[in-house]
Amino acid sequence: MRARLLEATVELLVERGFAGTSTTLVSERAGVSRGAQLHHFPTKNDLVVAAVEHLTERRGAELAEAVEQLPGGSKRTSAVLRMLGDHFSSPVFAAALELWVAARTDDALLAAVSPLEQRVGRETHRLTVAALGADESEPGVRELVQATLDLVRGLGLAQTITDDTVRRRRILDAWADVLDKELAR
Amino acid sequence: MRARLLEATVELLVERGFAGTSTTLVSERAGVSRGAQLHHFPTKNDLVVAAVEHLTERRGAELAEAVEQLPGGSKRTSAVLRMLGDHFSSPVFAAALELWVAARTDDALLAAVSPLEQRVGRETHRLTVAALGADESEPGVRELVQATLDLVRGLGLAQTITDDTVRRRRILDAWADVLDKELAR
Repeated sequence: MRARLLEATVELLVERGFAGTSTTLVSERAGVSRGAQLHHFPTKNDLVVAAVEHLTERRGAELAEAVEQLPGGSKRTSAVLRMLGDHFSSPVFAAALELWVAARTDDALLAAVSPLEQRVGRETHRLTVAALGADESEPGVRELVQATLDLVRGLGLAQTITDDTVRRRRILDAWADVLDKELAR
Repeated sequence: MRARLLEATVELLVERGFAGTSTTLVSERAGVSRGAQLHHFPTKNDLVVAAVEHLTERRGAELAEAVEQLPGGSKRTSAVLRMLGDHFSSPVFAAALELWVAARTDDALLAAVSPLEQRVGRETHRLTVAALGADESEPGVRELVQATLDLVRGLGLAQTITDDTVRRRRILDAWADVLDKELAR
């Protein structure tokens, strides 16, 4: 029942945004009584934060599995970047973005979202370093990994209002060429 | 009066977000009667799109002036990137982000926001190419300029919920070193 509520919440965040997501709509879509819902999640904020956390963790696990399937060799960096680019352009990113933007002007939501964002950010950074085989003890490498993640976040934002897939791949392939040269130094 | 309405709208978007911005609050803050406001801007969407357009144009002009003041020589690329990073981390970016995210789930708003975003995107791209002295006829250069703008957009998003200034400058300085090498090829 908890999982059904969380899935319904993410669906509604993606379809209707934060403002258009109400606890009533969530209980209707999940087919869960209001009483049961309130027992699990007393407020809308509890529900949306738990939903994005749940989906982020599931997608994080999927990302970790996807890394295992990536090719080695000269195409690896490009494959890692495309994987990250697709990850940050998924509907789950749109749901997280809704939460993030709502938190900007809602202190209670911000207090719940900030630790989640920090944790997810650290995990994604670690996964990216490992997938790229980057050595962060080399000067500048940590910053380029961070730049890569900020880049895919920016590309994810562009994707929310337009289909940006072709442009995104061209940019990430060019970035991969640069990254290969820099990481090999 | 028109300018007062637009300034008040942007202030409210920054302070309260898209959902928290109402035409009533705007007319109160601007000190403009409801009738006069409705004459200029019949709907909330008219008002918010005009407000973000107005501010984006003003900030675009400020950016173009700031480019004129930048140093030449070896520090130029870093100065250009810091200028762009600060631009995309300003309150005006937060107001534009509110509009962008609301447009994701509002087709009428999206129809108004998309052409604005495309125009602003083209102008910012042109300004960045000129400021960096980049030659886009060289292979890969256009993609690296686009990547730079997607990077500062991602950094702008990070800035909305945390003070990210120090991290942003480190990342942009590292990127400036790479960009200098790539553009000199």
